[in-house]
Amino acid sequence: MDCDLIVVGGGIAGLTACIYASCSGLNVLCIENQACGGQIINTPKIINYPGFLEIDGMNLVENLQKQTTRLGTNIQFQQISYMDLAGNTKVFKTNHAEYGAKAAIIATGAGKKKLEICGEKAFQGRGVSYCATCDGRFFEGKVVAVVGGGRTAISDAVYLSNICKQVYVIHRRREFRASKAEIENMTKKKNISLKLNKIVSEIKGNGLVESLELKDVETNEKHKLKLDGVFIAIGSTPNSENFKKWVDLDSHGYIVADESCKTKTDGLFVAGDVRTKKARQLVTAASDGAVSALAAVEYIQNID
Amino acid sequence: MDCDLIVVGGGIAGLTACIYASCSGLNVLCIENQACGGQIINTPKIINYPGFLEIDGMNLVENLQKQTTRLGTNIQFQQISYMDLAGNTKVFKTNHAEYGAKAAIIATGAGKKKLEICGEKAFQGRGVSYCATCDGRFFEGKVVAVVGGGRTAISDAVYLSNICKQVYVIHRRREFRASKAEIENMTKKKNISLKLNKIVSEIKGNGLVESLELKDVETNEKHKLKLDGVFIAIGSTPNSENFKKWVDLDSHGYIVADESCKTKTDGLFVAGDVRTKKARQLVTAASDGAVSALAAVEYIQNID
Repeated sequence: MDCDLIVVGGGIAGLTACIYASCSGLNVLCIENQACGGQIINTPKIINYPGFLEIDGMNLVENLQKQTTRLGTNIQFQQISYMDLAGNTKVFKTNHAEYGAKAAIIATGAGKKKLEICGEKAFQGRGVSYCATCDGRFFEGKVVAVVGGGRTAISDAVYLSNICKQVYVIHRRREFRASKAEIENMTKKKNISLKLNKIVSEIKGNGLVESLELKDVETNEKHKLKLDGVFIAIGSTPNSENFKKWVDLDSHGYIVADESCKTKTDGLFVAGDVRTKKARQLVTAASDGAVSALAAVEYIQNID
Repeated sequence: MDCDLIVVGGGIAGLTACIYASCSGLNVLCIENQACGGQIINTPKIINYPGFLEIDGMNLVENLQKQTTRLGTNIQFQQISYMDLAGNTKVFKTNHAEYGAKAAIIATGAGKKKLEICGEKAFQGRGVSYCATCDGRFFEGKVVAVVGGGRTAISDAVYLSNICKQVYVIHRRREFRASKAEIENMTKKKNISLKLNKIVSEIKGNGLVESLELKDVETNEKHKLKLDGVFIAIGSTPNSENFKKWVDLDSHGYIVADESCKTKTDGLFVAGDVRTKKARQLVTAASDGAVSALAAVEYIQNID
């Protein structure tokens, strides 16, 4: 056996799992296919991670990575090309090597869907956000828009209506995908205005976001909407596809597990944004990392 | 209404709830009856809280408290003398004032049971610990004892056996309160030795713990056990007593709620160590704080 535990993914959930597992004396390997940090790398200012008055995503990731390796985790930046997770030995082949472990934690995260329009990438963290709960507070008393027509878009709009002066909801259709009660709860807020049948064709600004270019999907007419921030809430994609042989997925593709972080396969755990759950925040991902690692430690102690 | 949300308890769960609720634009009051921080105040060195390579409990609490008040939470140090949490207005009377809120979060934590013997308090954080998962790593390659005879004591002993050179389990009876499988899993570890029918009568040392004085409960004979650390695992007491009119308690007195942190009473949530759950760690308490606050925010948005 090459190690006790393999953690797939070096975001905050995966790194926290490594911290806990390494602290417990396990021999831990973390396999990350890009850079550590996951979605937080691009977050310039975090004010809701408990313990830091303010920190940027890159610094938080750097701290976590140092902490992880100092406690003994081996982090490898490799692409996984083959897995067999059914048996007592969890097998991973990468472009560089083959590894076996007694247990594995899936912490591959989820990616926010992008509009793929001009200005979106350039203004990320400068007025473009994918998380109202994380960044809403930065727009206190300001004018923002939420883009999307599902439950997340609606709850983001309501959430932001308590903080911001004015919230526009921009949706490409006439109908929202949510319950009548949820929609009513949104429409009765005085500072929420709907912009239906509209798509955002460009995000414009000068250093920071200053306006959106909206296009009516029927008339193709364009108009400019002046604002300070835009929250894009058109869904996210969990990175779960490669694991579906060994876990159950919910209807949105997230890996099913309760707060124990145990999947249906013995010795296979799941942590962070890729798991089915309600709140996807830095600190809930970190918590999953700790819980899944302690569950893996217990599992390994009982098979040894 | 005096505020939107009252958070009872200023430990890590409560303060994180305040951070999230304040970020969302709610008017938040935190009522703490002693000092903020809860159990971590007395922890001199934390290495498993994600983001800090190393921090002491007092500093972490100070950061959290600053973060909380900077985001707008009003923290009051008062004793609660009366509560009515059933209705739409959650009512709290303290020795100073009366407060009403639309929702409340219980984050009163739990206290570790103490042996109440000489040396226990003086050496806390200097060889005496109440959490194997938190502090085990500091005793790598060393000799430690676990005091207790329940499931926590057993799992602590097994956990520590992977890190320490030698683990003694000191139990005042001959029988453990755990399943046969759990006991067997402990007894087969080569570096775990049982000291049955023994109580610890004193913890001795010079700056750091150096030995225990053990007393046989039948013969009253005393002997000295040299070691580097002692983990006291004789149970903990959740601070839930005053809330039992409005919540369900499990058989150990913890408040029943799943990971949504919702209790059986509308608008009443629970977060942190006082909640029924498996892993009680700093980061899992913080996660509960975030989840309960977001649930409270959603609840308030829907009643408004």
